[in-house]
Amino acid sequence: ALYKGMENWEEVVGRIRGLHTDTLRKLAGKCEDRFMAGQKDHLRFGTDSWSHFRLTTGKPCCEAGDAVYYTASYAKDPLVNYAIKICRSKVKETQQQFFHSLAVRQSLALHFNIQQDCGHFLADVPARLLPWEEEEDDGDEGGEEEDKDEAGEAEGGKKKEPSKKESTAKKVKKHKEGEEEEKALAEGQMGSAAVGTLRSRVVVITREVPFQTVADFVREGAARHGRNPDLYERQVCLLLLQLCSGLEHMKPYHVTHCDLRLENLLLVHCHPGNPWNLDVLEPNNNAANAAAAANSGTCPARLIISNFSQAKQKSPLVDPEVLRDQSRLAPEIVTATQYRKCDEFQTGILIYEMLHRPNPFEEMPELKEREYTCADLPPLPARSLYSQGLQQLASLLLNANPSERIRISDARACLQCLLWGPREDLFQALSSSPGPAHRDATLQNWLDLKRTLMMIKFAERSLDSGSGVSLEDWLCCQYLAFSTTETLARVVRILQHPSVSQL
Amino acid sequence: ALYKGMENWEEVVGRIRGLHTDTLRKLAGKCEDRFMAGQKDHLRFGTDSWSHFRLTTGKPCCEAGDAVYYTASYAKDPLVNYAIKICRSKVKETQQQFFHSLAVRQSLALHFNIQQDCGHFLADVPARLLPWEEEEDDGDEGGEEEDKDEAGEAEGGKKKEPSKKESTAKKVKKHKEGEEEEKALAEGQMGSAAVGTLRSRVVVITREVPFQTVADFVREGAARHGRNPDLYERQVCLLLLQLCSGLEHMKPYHVTHCDLRLENLLLVHCHPGNPWNLDVLEPNNNAANAAAAANSGTCPARLIISNFSQAKQKSPLVDPEVLRDQSRLAPEIVTATQYRKCDEFQTGILIYEMLHRPNPFEEMPELKEREYTCADLPPLPARSLYSQGLQQLASLLLNANPSERIRISDARACLQCLLWGPREDLFQALSSSPGPAHRDATLQNWLDLKRTLMMIKFAERSLDSGSGVSLEDWLCCQYLAFSTTETLARVVRILQHPSVSQL
Repeated sequence: ALYKGMENWEEVVGRIRGLHTDTLRKLAGKCEDRFMAGQKDHLRFGTDSWSHFRLTTGKPCCEAGDAVYYTASYAKDPLVNYAIKICRSKVKETQQQFFHSLAVRQSLALHFNIQQDCGHFLADVPARLLPWEEEEDDGDEGGEEEDKDEAGEAEGGKKKEPSKKESTAKKVKKHKEGEEEEKALAEGQMGSAAVGTLRSRVVVITREVPFQTVADFVREGAARHGRNPDLYERQVCLLLLQLCSGLEHMKPYHVTHCDLRLENLLLVHCHPGNPWNLDVLEPNNNAANAAAAANSGTCPARLIISNFSQAKQKSPLVDPEVLRDQSRLAPEIVTATQYRKCDEFQTGILIYEMLHRPNPFEEMPELKEREYTCADLPPLPARSLYSQGLQQLASLLLNANPSERIRISDARACLQCLLWGPREDLFQALSSSPGPAHRDATLQNWLDLKRTLMMIKFAERSLDSGSGVSLEDWLCCQYLAFSTTETLARVVRILQHPSVSQL
Repeated sequence: ALYKGMENWEEVVGRIRGLHTDTLRKLAGKCEDRFMAGQKDHLRFGTDSWSHFRLTTGKPCCEAGDAVYYTASYAKDPLVNYAIKICRSKVKETQQQFFHSLAVRQSLALHFNIQQDCGHFLADVPARLLPWEEEEDDGDEGGEEEDKDEAGEAEGGKKKEPSKKESTAKKVKKHKEGEEEEKALAEGQMGSAAVGTLRSRVVVITREVPFQTVADFVREGAARHGRNPDLYERQVCLLLLQLCSGLEHMKPYHVTHCDLRLENLLLVHCHPGNPWNLDVLEPNNNAANAAAAANSGTCPARLIISNFSQAKQKSPLVDPEVLRDQSRLAPEIVTATQYRKCDEFQTGILIYEMLHRPNPFEEMPELKEREYTCADLPPLPARSLYSQGLQQLASLLLNANPSERIRISDARACLQCLLWGPREDLFQALSSSPGPAHRDATLQNWLDLKRTLMMIKFAERSLDSGSGVSLEDWLCCQYLAFSTTETLARVVRILQHPSVSQL
């Protein structure tokens, strides 16, 4: 049937268009399967598995806002890397927040950009793995012991006698033991008495091993931003796009993160497409292959939203009594409603911070006191192709009126448009176009051409040795597979006439 | 510039068409690089390298018309398999033919379907590697010794004293030594005295390790031809297509093979596209990966034309004296001209033989005595989708008049059309079409659609784990990349009106 009507050109072109669209949707799905391979197996580690984890190195792989991460392997599956997340706060203050954030996170379905928990428990952690506490406790051994007691209490008064002995011995031959300890850490099991003082901490096991936070990326990128602004700001767009995707995924669950800051956003290496090396099939494998990294496009890494300790969730089943009480309150007073557009606002601040500008509201606290307009916001310097678009998006996200503030799904669409087009020249052609039918046809033509180019990219990838489908390819494929002339027209309207975002 | 004129649909469609064509040509080139990887490095082994070769097994991997092949590895590059081709004939009769065929083959540029020589020399070969000679010499030890002497003479009287001792010892403990010898063969170096009697033979090193000849394929396929005629006859088409490609490549060099028979066509495993296993990147690696084989499409193997001992070559620089002598001779008398369409004729016979039918001229020797027409040729039974087309092609190739006989390039195009279309239904649409412009448009539409489907196939391959681009994908890509509406129209005319082939 595919070859019927070969004499009709329009029919053939329509069939080719349909094939391209269907294939890109199929490819986007296959990419998801590959990039999330492993993550979809339901892993659950309990306290009993703690002694089967071994650290790969004694140094943290990432120091985030709420926790420090170590790379580790699990004895029963030694080829896969896991991250051990050790929460920063001491047990009592952490626990409550932690169980709140856990409840919120567990209500969400799996998403590529949201941290996934493969198990969490209270565990005995060698003191050496808590470097920030050593700094705090420096020259204060008594404090360390006190802390230990507190942890022991939290665990129900269970005391670690051998570890106390070790701690005393440590004073005598500190340096030499330090070396041995390091070795024990690298080789030994977690929770083993050989590793020195133990402290009780909330520990989370995750498959995705972060190598830095977005805060680190921004700090390290300062010089690069000056040297190569187009690349740096494109990377910022790709990270923001991932952030928006994660936040958009949370909306139907009525979850608001409420604490979006650079140090709560983690970066994970991502080389799943490298077809020449089975090792890197594991998306969380940190043994970064240099060739694959070089080929992975401009996207610096996979972004993961972490630290849900401040998250708010509007329960879908509200207690009728509460509902009656709330029914006379102004909407902005009711918590969940009040926070509805909070993540959008914080994303706007992140745009400033990622472009090496301070948070406008920290710089000018007086702004929030009055009904500011986007004209009051400090301008972002025009350094690249993307600066103007990011400025516009930040203004839309930082609108003082939550009802007028752009939705996260529209922000995501704007970032896609900034990254992959259509661009300014097509906008101009569209605004001078004679009517909506003509505009639709132009957008459809643009989409047809972009889809062809995407298909060619995938086709060429099948023969490129050493490189596979990159994260950027996948993100672009999602855009082209699921865009329509309607969604494109909406973004064009928003970027041309910002007030449209309120519709 | 690519995004200019987005409002003009016809322009966009034209640009998409151009992108598809260009990309398929690029992909065909990349496929060639991959399928011929290794073959393009210029390897040259001399007699001095003989002792660095080790057989992988003691059994031949393929027994061809002119030689027996063994799989071997080369000490300096142990991961790559080579084939050691040991010529069947005894040295004196072989040498002359061999150097003739060598000269012919070396005048040809590299081609995927023509055997490549990585070195050739006179070598001392253990008698055990010449099983056919053992059969001939059965119970005739004297003959074996005589043969040894003859070989020694050919090498300039060099005698192998230790090997003679071994040969005597062999009579005493023949069985036990046989085992040891086998072990020595598998582990030991070529030319080592430990392997028993040595005989001097012409040896050729090739990178492509054949696993059988087309004669073996046809014999083993007899039952399969009955069970699954569509698959078997499609495979025959794919092998014939490769044969025609190789022969077409020889035309500009004025080389005619003149001895095309099933046992001179070798089959080599071909899994270069498997991206998950570096081992199989080597196209000549016989360690066939079952998964890759299952995914390699219907093409049974790479076909290699071998045994150029009967080949004729018309020298491009003819001696003026000879030219004057020949100027009064009828063209069919002048050797090179006389053989010009010989390979086409023999290809026609091969079609019968590959479809399990005898050579018509062997069955009916009287045919050649008279001016036969294609109606006199025995009909091929219609067993599959391909039977009728193959019958037609055989008739065109077996035309008694060489001037009317179809050219090999047209035969290649007919096979491509049989394999990948256009098919009967489009032929009918074309013959009822109102004019040549309309017919061209229909063929262009068909080509656009096929190219889109091919591109999608490549795109999907980039995400299929375990399978890569198959040989059939490459062959089809070549067809679609380099076809035009003119070449398609020509094939359609030939298949509809066979007399067109003479134009």
